[in-house]
Amino acid sequence: MSRIGVFDSGVGGLTVLKSLAENFPQHDFIYLADTARLPYGTKSSSTIASYLKRNVEFLKSFQVEGVIVACNTASTVLIQSDLNFDLPVFNVIEPGAEAALQASQNKKIGVLGTRATVLSQAYVKALKNIDPTVEVHQMAAPLLVPLVEEGWVEDPLTSMVVYRYTQPLLDAGVDTLILGCTHYPVLKSSFQRVAASKAQLVDSPLALRKNVHGRFPELSKTSEGEKGMIRIYCTDLTPHLEQLINYLISPLSSQPIQKVDI
Amino acid sequence: MSRIGVFDSGVGGLTVLKSLAENFPQHDFIYLADTARLPYGTKSSSTIASYLKRNVEFLKSFQVEGVIVACNTASTVLIQSDLNFDLPVFNVIEPGAEAALQASQNKKIGVLGTRATVLSQAYVKALKNIDPTVEVHQMAAPLLVPLVEEGWVEDPLTSMVVYRYTQPLLDAGVDTLILGCTHYPVLKSSFQRVAASKAQLVDSPLALRKNVHGRFPELSKTSEGEKGMIRIYCTDLTPHLEQLINYLISPLSSQPIQKVDI
Repeated sequence: MSRIGVFDSGVGGLTVLKSLAENFPQHDFIYLADTARLPYGTKSSSTIASYLKRNVEFLKSFQVEGVIVACNTASTVLIQSDLNFDLPVFNVIEPGAEAALQASQNKKIGVLGTRATVLSQAYVKALKNIDPTVEVHQMAAPLLVPLVEEGWVEDPLTSMVVYRYTQPLLDAGVDTLILGCTHYPVLKSSFQRVAASKAQLVDSPLALRKNVHGRFPELSKTSEGEKGMIRIYCTDLTPHLEQLINYLISPLSSQPIQKVDI
Repeated sequence: MSRIGVFDSGVGGLTVLKSLAENFPQHDFIYLADTARLPYGTKSSSTIASYLKRNVEFLKSFQVEGVIVACNTASTVLIQSDLNFDLPVFNVIEPGAEAALQASQNKKIGVLGTRATVLSQAYVKALKNIDPTVEVHQMAAPLLVPLVEEGWVEDPLTSMVVYRYTQPLLDAGVDTLILGCTHYPVLKSSFQRVAASKAQLVDSPLALRKNVHGRFPELSKTSEGEKGMIRIYCTDLTPHLEQLINYLISPLSSQPIQKVDI
């Protein structure tokens, strides 16, 4: 059995946790939401690097065999840094970039993300690092995270917002769309309605799952044998947050969510 | 001539600044957006109190004669604290509560605010402190701030979101609606379309303007004589933020916006 740690500044990374736990149900997953310090996107690289180190240390205390940084800002800092950990630490950017380049025929790729992710050019750099000829079109979509956090998921209003952000990228001719924020897979049905006939969707949970499985082939999909457990820790916890976490991981469930002071 | 200081964690308080500067054009206004530390709503009272002291000190260095705390979270901390300043410091909650009680006939008052403001019960306490018999209905409206910050102001989609948040309060029979966040007056035309025939709208800029004028009767509305100036400082500044600030204060304009490290 393997035990994997996942962290994010908030709840977005739960889409990654859920995808892994659904596919590898015999294994344990520990999730840390650093909600006391969010948003990361507005903070300096050196501050984020110190959060990154502390969060990995916290997850290591559970004897995890690998850590997934399911946060775009922390992933960008990780890629640019020379931080070394004595266990595999996955970022959320490069697997998405690789998967998009594999999926794209015309090498025109669209990226939707938060304003901080778009400004950081993290996906543009990761894509061009693999294929310098790729054409990348970005769109900041700052309303999507609050829409997910409000729970307006299966909602025509949300589809209208998704349409408004996605259409300019489709008009630019992209055939592949990176959902460049871990919150966005929650809105996948809206994205599919708006874009699926014109572009392939690449999301972090799928891309990461392949990478993690490549590194840990012992993770198996069989549901035979004893089930693993999910533990979720938050550095700040409110009733709304608890409700949101349970909504986002359903139909899975976790041990009681705990507030942790780190 | 008077010189007044205004601060907020972000740009919302610019609605207060704009309203004051439009009405008292001969006077100087200094605005501080503590954008490096936003959001305040998720931080502890002691941390907010230290921000509050530092921000007031910064504004005092411009020889202001009064400071307006145009931020709900900092106002709540100010009301509950025993902080003493050697100049008048106005909070944004109590003037709104007073104005709403004056406006309401049936003493059923609705409050729209961020999730943090609603959870803090700041308006409920301020209203009940003046009239314990008042019936208060609250609604957290977390999408409205991102909609303003995205600039989707005169937009049918925004009106739909405003409708969804406001209708349950109108259904509960409120005849007065407090727009309990300094961002919301930017959406006033949407609120008027949705609610104006059923409820009176009370916003912070109007309520504060009356209070400030009561304290500083020398503030005069005459536009004769030399015009005052507006100076805006931000603890963190991005091109998007600069654009947003200019949009929110137009048709007024400020001295070049400056980043300040405090």
